Amino acid sequence: MTLILALDFGGTKLAAATVNVGSKQWLGYERRLSPTNANAETDLEIMRSLINSLLKGVKPDAIGVSFGGPVDATTGKVRLSHHVMGWENVPLRNLLEDEFGVPTRVDNDANVAALGEYRFGAGQGYDSLFYITVSTGVGGGWILNGKPWRGAEGMAGEIGHMVVDPSGPVCLCGKRGCVERLASGPYMAQDAREILLNEPHRDYRGEIIRELVGDNLESITGQILSNAAAAGDNLAKEILCRASWALGVGIGNVANLINPQLFVLGGGVTKAGEHFWEVLRKMSRETALPEVNFEIVPAALGDDAPLWGAVALALDSLQ
Amino acid sequence: MTLILALDFGGTKLAAATVNVGSKQWLGYERRLSPTNANAETDLEIMRSLINSLLKGVKPDAIGVSFGGPVDATTGKVRLSHHVMGWENVPLRNLLEDEFGVPTRVDNDANVAALGEYRFGAGQGYDSLFYITVSTGVGGGWILNGKPWRGAEGMAGEIGHMVVDPSGPVCLCGKRGCVERLASGPYMAQDAREILLNEPHRDYRGEIIRELVGDNLESITGQILSNAAAAGDNLAKEILCRASWALGVGIGNVANLINPQLFVLGGGVTKAGEHFWEVLRKMSRETALPEVNFEIVPAALGDDAPLWGAVALALDSLQ
Repeated sequence: MTLILALDFGGTKLAAATVNVGSKQWLGYERRLSPTNANAETDLEIMRSLINSLLKGVKPDAIGVSFGGPVDATTGKVRLSHHVMGWENVPLRNLLEDEFGVPTRVDNDANVAALGEYRFGAGQGYDSLFYITVSTGVGGGWILNGKPWRGAEGMAGEIGHMVVDPSGPVCLCGKRGCVERLASGPYMAQDAREILLNEPHRDYRGEIIRELVGDNLESITGQILSNAAAAGDNLAKEILCRASWALGVGIGNVANLINPQLFVLGGGVTKAGEHFWEVLRKMSRETALPEVNFEIVPAALGDDAPLWGAVALALDSLQ
Repeated sequence: MTLILALDFGGTKLAAATVNVGSKQWLGYERRLSPTNANAETDLEIMRSLINSLLKGVKPDAIGVSFGGPVDATTGKVRLSHHVMGWENVPLRNLLEDEFGVPTRVDNDANVAALGEYRFGAGQGYDSLFYITVSTGVGGGWILNGKPWRGAEGMAGEIGHMVVDPSGPVCLCGKRGCVERLASGPYMAQDAREILLNEPHRDYRGEIIRELVGDNLESITGQILSNAAAAGDNLAKEILCRASWALGVGIGNVANLINPQLFVLGGGVTKAGEHFWEVLRKMSRETALPEVNFEIVPAALGDDAPLWGAVALALDSLQ
């Protein structure tokens, strides 16, 4: 029996799981939220305690790691985390190989989640796919010819900062109208908040959002917008419509450029309901050339995609 | 001595060349313009006469073909030509293999030119690159991991129809503000023509263009705009500036998505002078994320890129 340890260092949560090779069920699974003042040290400490509680001294055969930030997948060295301090140039792979004495592979979460969906999820049986996660950010990972494509420096997949509307609102990246600015949860919440502040209590526009947050506009989230849209709120529908428009244009552009068979979409925002998917499918179809065919499907592994991808990474290290 | 026959079925011209493997010089080279009423039959007839004049009965060891339109590279079957009638589903590879009795490979011109630049031109020594040709259209071809990436159905590389300005002018493809609509020679000429028709003889705007075409606005071309811009014409500079803006945004988006080491730019429009390249470099740098690095260089093989790529295709067929 080959035992795999899969780790997921997310921006806000840490998760670890074990699985016997061939099984589709976790043997053990532990997760914990990252504390507010988290740094690399505290993250590693929490992860160690999760691992201990899972392994109870048993040695795994290999370790796979998903990390929420840029990683040099060749060396397994973390470049940095955009959410947690102190991760600059941490040699995570070496660190874990020294500690556990087994082969370890580390890659960034979007690449790992793409690999997870390809090997165990919605991408099974396809040879080329682009995985997109739409959540607090918008990121992506490639599978080409059945293998991860990471780009010359491991930076491939950044659909989030593709500009789709150069006259759109300014993103933290400095550009206007990139996909992430229009489609990520926090930015959509920010836009809703600003509109509701500037247009107080106009008939029916945003009334359901206000109800859901009890008029406390600060607590609007992407999730609340999804719920409000599902309940028929016009403002929430507008904002989600623009998000799905941006994603659809992005996907169509990507289809023209790389012509993959499949797009797999994960992350909370993609749960925004049928209208969201309709607009997204329509816009991607209109943006892609008529000769360029593709499917768009929801991710199958949910929040576990990075962990399952980490299992695939670990398996590859044993070959 | 291994003799390669390279063929280039362009939209408006036909070219054939022979080379001994290892040599960087053509042994023989023939080209002819496609007649105005060309169809697949006449193109094939002209190509046969070019080949006969080159080979004089000698049998080549392999044939490589660049075709100006979508091709199924696996079977070597042409799907269609957007410029010449009658090419629908022509099994060009089978046809040539039957006729010459030697291994033959066929692929579309952008993929073949990318391969040419990679093996014999500006892309030598790089492992991942995107070749872009900016001429009567805007097309592209991929080299990833040292091999052509054609996409699931051979349609990859279509940067020309990436939307960079959704409020821009309408393209033949039905979308607004795609790269080809803003940066291809004929569209730029059309835009100049319309502006000059609507704003007759305003001070200094377009005066040099008018001089160059002797007030015959119909004869404005991309080339003439390049020349006028180089001579200081403000309108020509504006139009070329928008073209290089569009290309720069497109390149930056592609860099974020695929993170190739190198972009190689060919085609007449890229000869528009230093300012064109400055804007293009600046915009691509601003559009790409700070961590995403790449170089942009001019193509080295000029109009011969497809023929040299055809040589590489033919060589691959001998392995």
